[in-house]
Order: sequence, then C-alpha cells, then structure tokens
Amino acid sequence: MLKGNAAVGQSGGPTSAINATLAGVFKGASQNDAIDKIYGAVHGIEGIINDNLTDLSEQIKTDEDLKLLKSTPAAFLGSCRKKLPPFDEGKDVYEKIFSIFTKYNIKYFFYIGGNDSMDTVYKLSEYAKIINYEICIVGVPKTIDNDLALTDHTPGFGSAAKYIATVTKELGREIVAYDMHSVIIVEIMGRNAGWLTAASALAKDEETDVPDLIYLPEVVFDTQKFIQKVKEIGERKKGIIIAVSEGVKTSDGNYLCDSVASGVADTFGHKYLGGAATVLEGIVRNEIGYKARAVVLNMPQRCAAHFASKTDIDESVQIGMAAVNEAVSGGTGEMMMFRRISDNPYKTEIIPAQISKIANEEKVIPREWINSDGDYVTPELIEYMRPLIMGENEIVTENGLPKHIVLKR
Amino acid sequence: MLKGNAAVGQSGGPTSAINATLAGVFKGASQNDAIDKIYGAVHGIEGIINDNLTDLSEQIKTDEDLKLLKSTPAAFLGSCRKKLPPFDEGKDVYEKIFSIFTKYNIKYFFYIGGNDSMDTVYKLSEYAKIINYEICIVGVPKTIDNDLALTDHTPGFGSAAKYIATVTKELGREIVAYDMHSVIIVEIMGRNAGWLTAASALAKDEETDVPDLIYLPEVVFDTQKFIQKVKEIGERKKGIIIAVSEGVKTSDGNYLCDSVASGVADTFGHKYLGGAATVLEGIVRNEIGYKARAVVLNMPQRCAAHFASKTDIDESVQIGMAAVNEAVSGGTGEMMMFRRISDNPYKTEIIPAQISKIANEEKVIPREWINSDGDYVTPELIEYMRPLIMGENEIVTENGLPKHIVLKR
Repeated sequence: MLKGNAAVGQSGGPTSAINATLAGVFKGASQNDAIDKIYGAVHGIEGIINDNLTDLSEQIKTDEDLKLLKSTPAAFLGSCRKKLPPFDEGKDVYEKIFSIFTKYNIKYFFYIGGNDSMDTVYKLSEYAKIINYEICIVGVPKTIDNDLALTDHTPGFGSAAKYIATVTKELGREIVAYDMHSVIIVEIMGRNAGWLTAASALAKDEETDVPDLIYLPEVVFDTQKFIQKVKEIGERKKGIIIAVSEGVKTSDGNYLCDSVASGVADTFGHKYLGGAATVLEGIVRNEIGYKARAVVLNMPQRCAAHFASKTDIDESVQIGMAAVNEAVSGGTGEMMMFRRISDNPYKTEIIPAQISKIANEEKVIPREWINSDGDYVTPELIEYMRPLIMGENEIVTENGLPKHIVLKR
Repeated sequence: MLKGNAAVGQSGGPTSAINATLAGVFKGASQNDAIDKIYGAVHGIEGIINDNLTDLSEQIKTDEDLKLLKSTPAAFLGSCRKKLPPFDEGKDVYEKIFSIFTKYNIKYFFYIGGNDSMDTVYKLSEYAKIINYEICIVGVPKTIDNDLALTDHTPGFGSAAKYIATVTKELGREIVAYDMHSVIIVEIMGRNAGWLTAASALAKDEETDVPDLIYLPEVVFDTQKFIQKVKEIGERKKGIIIAVSEGVKTSDGNYLCDSVASGVADTFGHKYLGGAATVLEGIVRNEIGYKARAVVLNMPQRCAAHFASKTDIDESVQIGMAAVNEAVSGGTGEMMMFRRISDNPYKTEIIPAQISKIANEEKVIPREWINSDGDYVTPELIEYMRPLIMGENEIVTENGLPKHIVLKR
C-alpha cells in the first residue's frame, strides 16, 4: 500500500452533485491510514500545473461543512476545461504535473469529471507508468449529461433530471391555466445525448399529461412531421408541452436552428433564429397558429441544488469514497462506475472500470428506448430513470435561501 | 348577515400561491355558517359567464387535498385574462353574470387576482348596487409582480422572489467555476415594476457576491454607462452576474431590445435581437469581450412551487380566510391587503381597502430604494423583501416529484 498525500480535482461543467463526490473523496481519504494530507487542486488539473493547491482539512473542518458541501452546486474547488496534449506534444505539461506531485508527495490522485477528465486520468496514469512514478490515479464520473460509457448512470444526472421533470410538471399546471390552445417548448441541455431531455417524461403521471412530445438528438428531426403531430394533439387537448434537446438535428446533420435558418424551413417563408426551442416556437406560432412560448432551462438545470435527488447525492458521496478505497487497494487508470443490480428495489454496486474503455466514448440513448415515431421515450427508459430522482437531498437554509460553502483563498 | 352560497374565481397570471389563497377562501367559507355551498368558477369570470361552476366540496374532500392545493402552482380552477367592459358597453355581460349569481344563489363572490381582477371586483360590486342585488364581493390580491397599490406586498411575490434569489445564488456558484472572465445575465419578469428583479439582490451575502448589477424598469437604461460599469467590475473580479428586468427601457421609452434593434446601439455596428438579457449578452460579448450568457428565467419563476416561501403560502391562506370574514361582515367592493406592522420581528395585519383606490393603479419601486447610479437596490429594499421569502413551504412528493391536485371535470 502506497503511503503519502492525496490530491483531488474537479473538471468539466458544474453539476449539483460534483461536490458531494468531493465530500466522499474527502471523507474516504480522511478515514484512510494510507493517506496523510488531502489537497484540493484549484480549477482542476490547472491547479496542479499552476501549483495552486489547498489543504482540504483547512477548508472542510466540521460535519456541518461536509453537509454544506453536499448541497452546494458547481465545483467547490473550481473547474477547468483543459484537455491534456498527447505525450509527444506536451512533455512540459506532464513534467510540470509530476514535479508538483513530487513536491507535495502525492501518491493518490482523484479526478472528478466527465469525458475529457477521464482522458486526463488515462493519460496521467499512462505517463506515470512510463516514468515509473508510483501513484494511483482514479477517475470519478460526473456529468449531468449521463453520456459516459459503461457506468449505469453518472452522478449529477439524477439531480438534473429531477429538476427538469419538476419544472416540466409545474409547467404542466401552468399550460392548462387558460382556456386556449397554447404550447410551451422546453429546451433542455444535451448536444449529442438526449438523456436529460428524456427526463422530462418523468413528469407524466395520473395528474399530469405532459410532456406531449419529446425530441432527442438521437433521432433526426422532421419539421413536417412535427407540425402534423402538434396539430393532431391540438385536436384533443389545448395545453401542449414539448421537450426538445438543444442538440436536435435535421436530416442534413445540422442543429435544428442552423438548418432551419439555412433553408430547411424556407418553404414556410420564415427564417427562425435562436436555439431549438425558439425555432419550434416560431414554427408553432406561424404554421399552426397556436400561442407558443420557448422556455430554455439553461444553466439552472445543472446547478439547482435546492431540489437535488437524495439518491443522486448519496450515490455521489459513495462513489467518491469507493474511489479512495480502490486507489488505496492499488487501482490506477480506472474510473469508478455504477452497475445496476436491480430496478425494483433499486440496487447498484460500485466497481472500477478500465479507463481506456471509457475515455472519449459517448453513450447516447439506445434506439429501442425511443418510440418508433422518434418523438417520445419508452416505459423502459422511464423505469431506468425513475430511481435516480428519488428522494430530496436535505439542504441547509439561512435567511430564506440555501446556504453554500465557499472555497477560502 | 347574508345567507346563501359563495363563488370564488382565479384570474391573471399563474403563481405558486394563488391556490393557497383558494385554500384559504375554501377553508374560511366551509367554517362559516352564513355560507352554504362554495362554487369554483372555472377560468375566472368566464366560468361565471359560461355557467361553468364546480362544487368545491366535490373537489377538495380531505385535509390532504387542502395541503396539496397549497403546494400546487398555477390556477387550480383555471384562469382568464378577461377585463369587463364599461357598463354602457357591455350590459349583456353583466346581466349574464348576475343571472348566474341568481341561479346559484350566490351571495358572496371572491376574486383572486391582480390589477385587472380588482377592476372586475370594482365593476361587479358597483353593478350590484345599481341593480340592488344583495351580494358581498371581495377581491384577494395575487401577483408575482408585487405591483398592486396600498397592500404592503402581494401573495405570490414572496415565492417568486425566493426562487429568483435561489437561482441567482446557485448561478453565483456556477459563475466562479472557471478561472476566466464570464458574465451571466439573468432576465427576470416585470414589464413596469422591478420588484422581482430586485429580489435577485437577496442572493448577496457573506458567501455570495452576486448579483453585481441590477437593472430595473424604474430607471432609464444607458448602454454606455452599462459597458463602463461591467468593465470596472471586471477589473476586480472574473465572475459577474447581472440581473435585468424584461421591462428595462432606454431613454426613448422603448424596451431595451426594441431600442437597440432600432438604432440606439448601432454606434457599435451591431444589431441585437431577443429580450433584454440577450441584448446585454451581445453587448458584453462584442463590446467588452467577456464570455457572456443570457439566462431567461421565464415561466418557471412564477410556478416554482417546489421551493415556495412558507411565509408567502401561509399568508396567502390567511388572506383568503380573512376575505371570507370580511365579506360575511358585510364588506363589499373591497380588496384585502397586508399592512406591515414591523420588519423585525416581521408582523403584518390583514385589513380591507376600498377597491376604487387599488384597481388600475400600479405600484413601482420608489426611487429612494434604488441606488443613485440606478443599477442596484438599497439595503432598505432588501430589508423589506427578506421576511417575504422566509421558510420553505412543505410539499408532498410522489415518485421523486412534487405531487399536485388537479381539477376533476
């Protein structure tokens, strides 16, 4: 067993759960005899490169701090979007990183992030082998997009999904307020994978009959079919909600907004500007004549920690702790992942996976989990997502608002 | 004391608290001997005109139903935006309304809504006098905009303010995630009154140093001053959040987007399309060079019942109950209002006000509650708002999402 210090970094887009994973790593490392000090890399791998590390025991001092960390959105340590160069193009960077590892006697490095971050884990663990630097490097997944390979799901997805479904459900009450045809088009994040947009389907239940249509990047968007579908639905109900992924593409492979602006919808004599939802808003208004409004969920969907999934936050802590155990057992060049044992009761186990099988892979929704018309999801997909949004993470409030913990500099 | 049935309607834009007021009216009327049946008018005054009433005791049967009603956003009974015509132009409408009142033996009518709804209360109570129809008509305020005259604040405002401040606070964590200059511009509802936009200031505390700038409809927007301010702030910090009201106007009296598109910002050689935030996003990106992103809060800010203010919801129930007591005591042509007795401890009383003093008046933020530069609010305004967002209304969840109650038809 290696003995020494540990470093942990956060990378990629903010989520409501990335700090819960940090809390798990901190807790796991604090309890482990192999690890002395735990350093946080400020702004991910850039914090290592720039020698910007903070002793986490100076930041997280009490159980209250740890609880706040679990309910503080976005990256407590700061994040980055840096992708490491190939070894032959960026020798300096690797030498710098490992000189810092040496300086701080780092024997364990944990990197919490998405696809690019797992690429960093892969490269650093390979480089360590080349230079014979003894270190265990383990990645911990984090992305609202749920698009990482192998793992059943990613920490952060459940909380974003819960917020998206909640807002969709609330808009479902709003859309029936007036006695007139009206359409809300909700634009949800996801450039290539439609998991988050699919999560809107969780809103549909006995009391809520929205969303009516769901458009995903996995299926080519057809404007004529869209118009026909909305008209059909409009014949039997007045309030319509459509969920659309920002990454929906037309048959030419362009994003909806680009395609339409560049000619696809010119048959209607209109040009539509804006994102996917704004384009659909224009189509509904001009081609069908219903009142229409685009609601772009935007950044709040990835940092709505005030209504995070307890399942997601608890699992995020657990996977952080499991990463520490795995590294101390000698695991390196790995990413921790969830394997689902059963849906009902929901049960998962946390196991390591070889990082080389994950980095730079992107998991999209399987076609069989999307209906044949390509405008809704199947019950199987809903059953897959449901356990991930269960429970409400306990938050601390002060002066009427969620309380957060902030990095002391 | 009049004896007979009561009718209640909801009108205007959805809020998170309008159903809590309905719950209060229902509870108050159920407990009052003067009132036999309580009818709900489906889609506000249109429900009266169209003889579309529902016996509320068939809808709300248990304490659980009442609890769900308090946490279900938007108008349970359905809403409308109908403004009644002057007496001499719309005799038919008034005759129809009072024929329905007669048919159902309505002796009490409660109308929950904003400005236009109070106009309806005024006209109906005046018309009743003219035709000698014995009825007590009392309005109950409801609007997220907080723009009604006389009352200290309006039910619904506190919950919207709490959501806006919460999202701003969460975005405050997001904006510092990356080590680079970036600006989030949050667009908040309010065409003429800036109360909701001002609520973003509640986010600022020891741990959160945003928003940095707040632009309200009460103050003329100056593009050059804006650019200068953002540059100044950018010299001392990297993550900047700007709150802007959708109703911000330039010196020509036009909305920001219209003004800029029509020439005001043409000195920069750019045309900006979209709402206020999108215009500012373009200005920040093109004139200052910072990364910028518009976040339009849109409809979710008025129906985010999943994180409603307990103070707001409790008060909304109370004012509904108080309206019943006032009507049974013979009050008519009145709106119930809050009078603030003290800030700390927060204490209010509910009293009636003559509707003629309220209808068609619009309360904007007093100039002395806005700083001299016109780009932030004063501590007095924050102190005024703070009590209104305190506490979290208890919600019922099912399958990981808030449960609502839906009108049975």
